[in-house]
Amino acid sequence: MHILTVAYGHPTDPAAFDAHYDQTHRGLAEKIPWLKAFTALKCTSLDSTPPPYYLLAQLTFDSEADLGAGLGSPEGQAAAADVATFADGGATMFVQHD
Amino acid sequence: MHILTVAYGHPTDPAAFDAHYDQTHRGLAEKIPWLKAFTALKCTSLDSTPPPYYLLAQLTFDSEADLGAGLGSPEGQAAAADVATFADGGATMFVQHD
Repeated sequence: MHILTVAYGHPTDPAAFDAHYDQTHRGLAEKIPWLKAFTALKCTSLDSTPPPYYLLAQLTFDSEADLGAGLGSPEGQAAAADVATFADGGATMFVQHD
Repeated sequence: MHILTVAYGHPTDPAAFDAHYDQTHRGLAEKIPWLKAFTALKCTSLDSTPPPYYLLAQLTFDSEADLGAGLGSPEGQAAAADVATFADGGATMFVQHD
């Protein structure tokens, strides 16, 4: 199992971020081939401090090869290119694997 | 669904971290009541840069109330106290929720 985590920093305009994410980006991400599971969840902290991220998206693939093929596909490239259009708080990407 | 994410920074001694995590910490975490799912996966990056975290643990609970009860239980407190004994690269905790 290989999971691509996209950790979005806090946007300048959360309502605009949410609208773009729900109406455009989620659909692009869900079209990525070889994708086995997709979650996108808002973050909070355990205390009153701001959490380090605004939203965490996690894209699960069966293998490193599937993850690479998915991200390299036209659909993967389209989703990646879209991130720059709305994630003005930054987006940190890394992979978790067993 | 409420997920507690524990993002471990890079430890000074990865082998010692791994040994403690596998032999002690994982068992403590898995004993936390109301825990519905537990994953702990090593991180890599998409390019040659170091990933922001060494390991990401994710503890899934059905609700915010269950998460609070689990962390507040003796087992939750024992797992939390153990983190300070081995996570010398730091541990960032936050919650994801739908």
